Amino acid sequence: MVRAIMHGCNGHMGQVITGLIKDDPEIEIVAGVDPVDCRDNGYPVFPSIDKCTVEADVIIDFTSAKAVDGLIAYSAEKKVPVVLCTTGLSEEQLKSLEEASSQVAVLRSANMSLGINMLMKILQDAAKILVPAGFDIEIVEKHHNRKLDAPSGTALALADAINDGVLDGEYEYKYDRSQDHKKREKKEIGISAVRGGTIVGDHDVIFAGTDEVITFSHTAYSRAIFGKGAIQAAKYLAGKPAGFYHMSDVINAQV
Amino acid sequence: MVRAIMHGCNGHMGQVITGLIKDDPEIEIVAGVDPVDCRDNGYPVFPSIDKCTVEADVIIDFTSAKAVDGLIAYSAEKKVPVVLCTTGLSEEQLKSLEEASSQVAVLRSANMSLGINMLMKILQDAAKILVPAGFDIEIVEKHHNRKLDAPSGTALALADAINDGVLDGEYEYKYDRSQDHKKREKKEIGISAVRGGTIVGDHDVIFAGTDEVITFSHTAYSRAIFGKGAIQAAKYLAGKPAGFYHMSDVINAQV
Amino acid sequence: MVRAIMHGCNGHMGQVITGLIKDDPEIEIVAGVDPVDCRDNGYPVFPSIDKCTVEADVIIDFTSAKAVDGLIAYSAEKKVPVVLCTTGLSEEQLKSLEEASSQVAVLRSANMSLGINMLMKILQDAAKILVPAGFDIEIVEKHHNRKLDAPSGTALALADAINDGVLDGEYEYKYDRSQDHKKREKKEIGISAVRGGTIVGDHDVIFAGTDEVITFSHTAYSRAIFGKGAIQAAKYLAGKPAGFYHMSDVINAQV
Amino acid sequence: MVRAIMHGCNGHMGQVITGLIKDDPEIEIVAGVDPVDCRDNGYPVFPSIDKCTVEADVIIDFTSAKAVDGLIAYSAEKKVPVVLCTTGLSEEQLKSLEEASSQVAVLRSANMSLGINMLMKILQDAAKILVPAGFDIEIVEKHHNRKLDAPSGTALALADAINDGVLDGEYEYKYDRSQDHKKREKKEIGISAVRGGTIVGDHDVIFAGTDEVITFSHTAYSRAIFGKGAIQAAKYLAGKPAGFYHMSDVINAQV
Repeated sequence: MVRAIMHGCNGHMGQVITGLIKDDPEIEIVAGVDPVDCRDNGYPVFPSIDKCTVEADVIIDFTSAKAVDGLIAYSAEKKVPVVLCTTGLSEEQLKSLEEASSQVAVLRSANMSLGINMLMKILQDAAKILVPAGFDIEIVEKHHNRKLDAPSGTALALADAINDGVLDGEYEYKYDRSQDHKKREKKEIGISAVRGGTIVGDHDVIFAGTDEVITFSHTAYSRAIFGKGAIQAAKYLAGKPAGFYHMSDVINAQV
Repeated sequence: MVRAIMHGCNGHMGQVITGLIKDDPEIEIVAGVDPVDCRDNGYPVFPSIDKCTVEADVIIDFTSAKAVDGLIAYSAEKKVPVVLCTTGLSEEQLKSLEEASSQVAVLRSANMSLGINMLMKILQDAAKILVPAGFDIEIVEKHHNRKLDAPSGTALALADAINDGVLDGEYEYKYDRSQDHKKREKKEIGISAVRGGTIVGDHDVIFAGTDEVITFSHTAYSRAIFGKGAIQAAKYLAGKPAGFYHMSDVINAQV
Repeated sequence: MVRAIMHGCNGHMGQVITGLIKDDPEIEIVAGVDPVDCRDNGYPVFPSIDKCTVEADVIIDFTSAKAVDGLIAYSAEKKVPVVLCTTGLSEEQLKSLEEASSQVAVLRSANMSLGINMLMKILQDAAKILVPAGFDIEIVEKHHNRKLDAPSGTALALADAINDGVLDGEYEYKYDRSQDHKKREKKEIGISAVRGGTIVGDHDVIFAGTDEVITFSHTAYSRAIFGKGAIQAAKYLAGKPAGFYHMSDVINAQV
Repeated sequence: MVRAIMHGCNGHMGQVITGLIKDDPEIEIVAGVDPVDCRDNGYPVFPSIDKCTVEADVIIDFTSAKAVDGLIAYSAEKKVPVVLCTTGLSEEQLKSLEEASSQVAVLRSANMSLGINMLMKILQDAAKILVPAGFDIEIVEKHHNRKLDAPSGTALALADAINDGVLDGEYEYKYDRSQDHKKREKKEIGISAVRGGTIVGDHDVIFAGTDEVITFSHTAYSRAIFGKGAIQAAKYLAGKPAGFYHMSDVINAQV
């Protein structure tokens, strides 16, 4: 039984993961960390990670960028692997995470869902076949109307998976065509961002060729899928040697 | 039997329409106009409209902007109604067309397909119900990689149908969100342009609300649909009094 | 302020509606009815509707077929309008509901979401234009893997809206083509049911013509949309004279 | 320069391939076979393959089942590799093709398009990851209203690629759910067939899990894609040793 600390246990995703783990025979939450202690989660809650006195095999983190510094220090010092799901980290934080990975197992991905990470892997195979045959690549992502950034980090990660993985990073990302009056450039990936309502997150990767179009679509119905992916990652990471891991490692281990 | 002149008879759309009309018992082509006379179309072909000596009830035009001036003059003088399908007209040409419509029946639409014009009509009803209920509107269009302009004239016409028809023209069109870092504005319609392969023309109009999304999609499989719409328009326009007509009039006459 | 009784207040949808109404300035829940009284809802809860001693302007019902008989009797006797959202009623129950509607305002629809009911209205206009132009109609619905019936009641209601509303009921519904070896019959509407995962409910109504396809799609992201529709219906129904009402009445009142 | 015989050169696909090859520097048509000799194709046309006196490196076949027997015999005897694109072969013909493949290189696939064959390959990887994670698989295909069979051979080939390739053939194909009143069985693949208008061929393979859905879609805009695939296959097959080849071999050779 993997023993996990839930860092940010009383936030939205912390509660989702607490709920998901309750019925899981392979993993349990032995402690939570949250400045707010308002709920009976069935495990002790500490105001910050350095106050935590419970031993664990892995930490799952869904907090905010400013709570991450203490977490990285703790993880490296105590040698407890960490699944870091908080987004919006600074360059400096990413660098200190990189450094920590020489001391302890660290896993971080732009998107924690199994489906998106499976797509990243598969899209590279598709691109290897379709790009030489003249197919153009375009991405359309859709999110709720409160999202601040565009395009989504996941759309960029999908584009990078193809561009860096297969196309030698030679393709440019094109966000707006309304100012041009010209044919599409061959070496570009168009990325469009649609915003509306409460859409959780849709991503379409489109390969358009002569008289045929192939589309890879991912639709998220709730953010619980990120919790599920984090739990899978935690089970995978517990007991692993120091190093920087990705969701692709979790997926490859399953096949 | 409606007698039609095919203006631009040896171009791609002229040939498509020639083919479609062959089996139609309600309309026939009695003459063509084209500077190139390379084919046996089964009707006489004149190098320009002012050389045409055959009487007709209606003219169908699919040429290029520069061939349109003579056509408008001829149509107004001879009182032969004209279905004008050429795109990319100048402001001046649009104005002279407007003037001609006091002399003769003139029909022009951004997109001649029955499906798109039906959508324009229906989207207004949808917007009347969904916008007050808080739904956001977004449009995604997809076209082949040789298309010069973005977004498509049809996407703009769909947006205008909603904005001018129902929203008092108060909504702004948003073509690029990659430079912002903020929530979506309520009074905007996002319009995204995807380009790739040989896609003939896809248009999605998306109404995104709280936990539900309604999408109206139109997919064109060939440009023949524009020819079919032009033929329907020609049958409708023959014999009509002077005035400016739209595909919506053709559709409303059918219901 | 409309005073509502929530019939089935401690079930899933009862709780959703309780949550949604909390922030609504136009309607409040003054009492609940549920055999299970396990929660503090902020209003009194009675074990059955005939025990309820609180006066109200409207009842919202999301229970099960067997709880509906007492409700219909109470509503008719006390002259309290009822929004009946429970599905799977027997022929007998539907008949007694019909009878009750001569005494009191009753509203019932196969699907309570604003989006689906808007589609039902609009699809009739689309069919009037597209069916004479030779378009074929097909419906594809997708639901979670625990759903017992197929096709969904909503898919059938969409088909009926078109067939009974525009096509004189002359079209047959086709659920399976795998046993045939022949061309599609003109006067049929194909209805396909996809089952998988936790899909809340997708419905596509497809009009396929020569070289163009128009699709009307509705995606539900949570069952909360049925609660929202029920609340809108309750506000509409309070104070209405006896009669049988539908969600289409609620929608038409808004336009 | 690969020298090809076009078997069925004056049929629809024969003409498409004749057109596509005209501008291809790597392959040329040196002879055609067709009982009807009505056109100037720029190469000699023979009424049947046994009358053909021109030497070639490969034969491309798009005819009808009854023309295939002579072709197989000729190919085996003269040791000319054959790309067999005719569908609807009898069990007997498939068997004699199998036998011929010990004498000469033979290639046959249910669908000749690059996109569909790429999908078949990739879907196996997706299924390896997603099926153990509890995702359900469903296929929806759409074709024109004159298609006689349902589901399409391509839909079945996609299902077989997953079922035989990854699921040990243990999953059953489910074509109709309207007669059941029960939950979805775990070990089934639902296959739905939509028919309407002139749809060339759409295939959606849907993986539906908990709160996320991944869809692989292929849309054909014209049958020319089958011609393109046949040409690629012909270039690949010329000079290959005896054996039975598939489009997957052509694709794997490219990666």
